[in-house]
Amino acid sequence: MAITQLKHYHSLTIESAISLAKDLSLFDPSENLTCEEIGDGNLNYVFRIASSESGKSIIIKQALPYAKVVGESWPLTLDRARIEARALTLQRSLAERLVPEVYHSDEQLAITIMEDLSHLEIARKGLNKGEIYPSLSKDIGEFLGATLFFTSDYALHPFKKKGYVKEFSNPELCKITEDLVFTDPFFNSETNEFEQALEEEVRNLWDDLPLKLEVAKLKRSFLTEGEALLHGDLHTGSIFAGKEETKVIDPEFAFYGPIGFDLGQFLANLIFQAVVREEKPKKEEILRHIETTWDVFESTFSQFWDQSEDAYTKIDGYLEYVLEKSFADTIGFLGCELIRRTIGLAHVEDLDSVQDEEKRVLYKKTCLALGRECILERHRIRSIQDLLDKLI
Amino acid sequence: MAITQLKHYHSLTIESAISLAKDLSLFDPSENLTCEEIGDGNLNYVFRIASSESGKSIIIKQALPYAKVVGESWPLTLDRARIEARALTLQRSLAERLVPEVYHSDEQLAITIMEDLSHLEIARKGLNKGEIYPSLSKDIGEFLGATLFFTSDYALHPFKKKGYVKEFSNPELCKITEDLVFTDPFFNSETNEFEQALEEEVRNLWDDLPLKLEVAKLKRSFLTEGEALLHGDLHTGSIFAGKEETKVIDPEFAFYGPIGFDLGQFLANLIFQAVVREEKPKKEEILRHIETTWDVFESTFSQFWDQSEDAYTKIDGYLEYVLEKSFADTIGFLGCELIRRTIGLAHVEDLDSVQDEEKRVLYKKTCLALGRECILERHRIRSIQDLLDKLI
Repeated sequence: MAITQLKHYHSLTIESAISLAKDLSLFDPSENLTCEEIGDGNLNYVFRIASSESGKSIIIKQALPYAKVVGESWPLTLDRARIEARALTLQRSLAERLVPEVYHSDEQLAITIMEDLSHLEIARKGLNKGEIYPSLSKDIGEFLGATLFFTSDYALHPFKKKGYVKEFSNPELCKITEDLVFTDPFFNSETNEFEQALEEEVRNLWDDLPLKLEVAKLKRSFLTEGEALLHGDLHTGSIFAGKEETKVIDPEFAFYGPIGFDLGQFLANLIFQAVVREEKPKKEEILRHIETTWDVFESTFSQFWDQSEDAYTKIDGYLEYVLEKSFADTIGFLGCELIRRTIGLAHVEDLDSVQDEEKRVLYKKTCLALGRECILERHRIRSIQDLLDKLI
Repeated sequence: MAITQLKHYHSLTIESAISLAKDLSLFDPSENLTCEEIGDGNLNYVFRIASSESGKSIIIKQALPYAKVVGESWPLTLDRARIEARALTLQRSLAERLVPEVYHSDEQLAITIMEDLSHLEIARKGLNKGEIYPSLSKDIGEFLGATLFFTSDYALHPFKKKGYVKEFSNPELCKITEDLVFTDPFFNSETNEFEQALEEEVRNLWDDLPLKLEVAKLKRSFLTEGEALLHGDLHTGSIFAGKEETKVIDPEFAFYGPIGFDLGQFLANLIFQAVVREEKPKKEEILRHIETTWDVFESTFSQFWDQSEDAYTKIDGYLEYVLEKSFADTIGFLGCELIRRTIGLAHVEDLDSVQDEEKRVLYKKTCLALGRECILERHRIRSIQDLLDKLI
C-alpha cells in the first residue's frame, strides 16, 4: 500500500526551488542550475532558475501567506496562487501569444512554474524610461477582446460560465480592490497617501457627493456584474513588454466582473504616461496607444461576436449596446484608477518619480481632475476620441 | 470501529417516508402515523405525514432525478433539493413569519422535511376561485424587501456574499429560466405552446427586433447581475396563502440575480388575475395587491437600507438609484413573464382555465400586448401608478 505523504505549505529557498525544478524534470538531471530570488518580497517569492548549459530558464512564483504594505503585514489567502495559475492557463488558451506558458502548479505549495520572460521588461518601467513598445496597445486590445469575449455568456455555455464563476470566486483579492479603488480614496481613510500640496483637492473630492454617488454605482457594478473573467489588476506593472512581444502576467486578482474594469485600469495607467510626458511626440505616442487599445479591443470582440451562435447576438443593436455599456464603464473605472493611484494606498512610479515637486503636484492635480470628470461624465464621453480630447 | 454506511439516493415510498420520520424522532415513537403522497409527481414527491393522536403533521419533499413536462422526461439535478433547503432556511432567518420551518434536510436523499402548510391554499388556486387574501401583497412585499436587501452587498460583508453566490450557484435551474422565459417564447421554438388564434400576434413578436433587443438586455441582466439571492420562481403557485397568513415555498430556483426578477414574476402573476377579472371591485382588489407589493417592498428595503453601516448607503441619491434600476428591471421581467406564460411551455391556470374561447384569446392578446409594452417602455414606466394605469 502506497503511503500518501501530505504536502504542506512551506516557503521555498534557493536550494529547495532548484530541487523542485529537478524533481519535476523541468531540466535534464545533468544540468548545472543557478537560482536567484528576483521578487520584491511583498506578496510573493519569485525564483529564476537557469541552466548554464542549455540556456533554458524558468520562473517559480510562490505566494506568501501575507502581504507587506507600507511596513505592515497582513494575512492574505494562498488560494490566489491557484487562481493565478488557472487564470494564466485559461487566458493562454484564449490568447496564446500574449500569456506566459505555465509548466506546473501546486496548490499546496501555492506555486506556479512558468515561462521566464526576463528578456522583456515590465511595461511601466520601460515606459517611464521612454522605451517604445510599438505593439503594446494592439496586443493588450487583442488580449482583452479574446479573454473577455470568450469567458462571457456570449461565448460560453451557461454551465461552463457558471462553473468558472465559482472557480474564480476571489473574495479576498476583490476586497482589496473594493477598498483601495472604490472606497478609501473617496473617504478620509487611514490607507490614503498624498502630499500636503494636494490637501485641498483631496478634501474637495471627499466632499463631492455627486462624485461619490457615481463611484457608488461603479462599485456596485464591480460587486455585482459577472460579465467576463477579468484579469483584475491590469496595470502596466502586470505586463511584460518588448519591441515585438507583450505578455500579460499576475492575474491573481482574476474574478468574474464587468468588462470595462480591465480596460479602465489599463487605460488609466497609460494616461499617467500621457500626463507626465510634455514633449508632443512622446505624449502623442501614448495617445495612440490609448486609441489603439480601445479600437483593437472593440474590433476583436466584435469579430468574435459575429461568429457566435447565440440567437440574441444576431439581433441588430445588441453588440452596440454591449460595447456602449462597456465603454461607459471603462471611462468610469478609469476615473477611479486615476484617483486612487494618486491619493490612495498604492501609487504609481509614473507620477511619484517626477522629481520636480511643482510639476509632480500639477500632474497629480491633472489626474484627480480628469478622474473626477471621467467618473461624472462617463455617459457623455461617447468615444475614445472624446477621451483623447481631454488629454491634449 | 463504527461502520459508515453510505446512503444513496432512492425514491421514498409511503412506508419508507414514515420510517424516516420516526428515525428522525419527528414524532413520538408511540404515535400512529398516516402518510399520503400529495405532489403532482412532475418534479418531486411530496409526502404528508400526520399523527392522528397529536394532530401534528409534517411534509417530506423529495426531488426526483428527472422532470416530466408535457409527457416528456428529462434528467434534472438533485442538487436543487440542497438549494431549496438552504434557501428556505436562509430566507426564514430573514423573514421568519413568511417562510415554512425546515425540520431536516438530506442532500443524498434530496429531501427537505418541513412545516405542513395544508391549512393554507396555493395562492394561484385560491385567487382563481375568487378567494380574498388581504395580507398577500403586504407579506410578499415584506418578504422581498427583507430577503433581497439582506442577501445583497448593501447588507453583507463581501466574503459572506461571495460565499452565498458560490453556494447558490444553480446552473441547471437557471438554464430552464434562461430558455423558457428569455429565449424560447421570442423565437419559433418547439417548446412554445399557444392556440391557433394567437398565431398572428406570436409571429409579430418573433419578428419584433426592437422587442428582442430589449429582451436580450434583460436576459443579459439575468445572466450577469448577482445583486441578491432570488427566490427565482416567485409566481402565485409558489405561495401558500390564507386570510391572515402567507408562506413562500419552493425556492429551488434560488440563485444570485437581479433584484427586479422576483418582483417582476410575482407582479406578472397578479396581472393575469387583473386581466381575467371583469368585475370592477374584483379587478380593483388585484390592482391594490400590485400597488401594495411594490410599495411595501420599497418601504421595507428602504428602512433596512437606512440602518446599513456601509459608507456609500449614506450618499444621497444612491438608494433612489438602486430602487429606480430595480423598478425598471421589474417592469421588464414582468413583461417577459406575461409573454412566456401565455405562449411558452409553462402556462398559467388563470388564463388557460377561462372556458369562453373568445374571452380567453382576448385576455391572452392583452397579456402579450402588455408584456411587449412593459419590455419596451420599462424605462418610461416610472412608478407603480404608471403600471396600474395600463391595467384599468
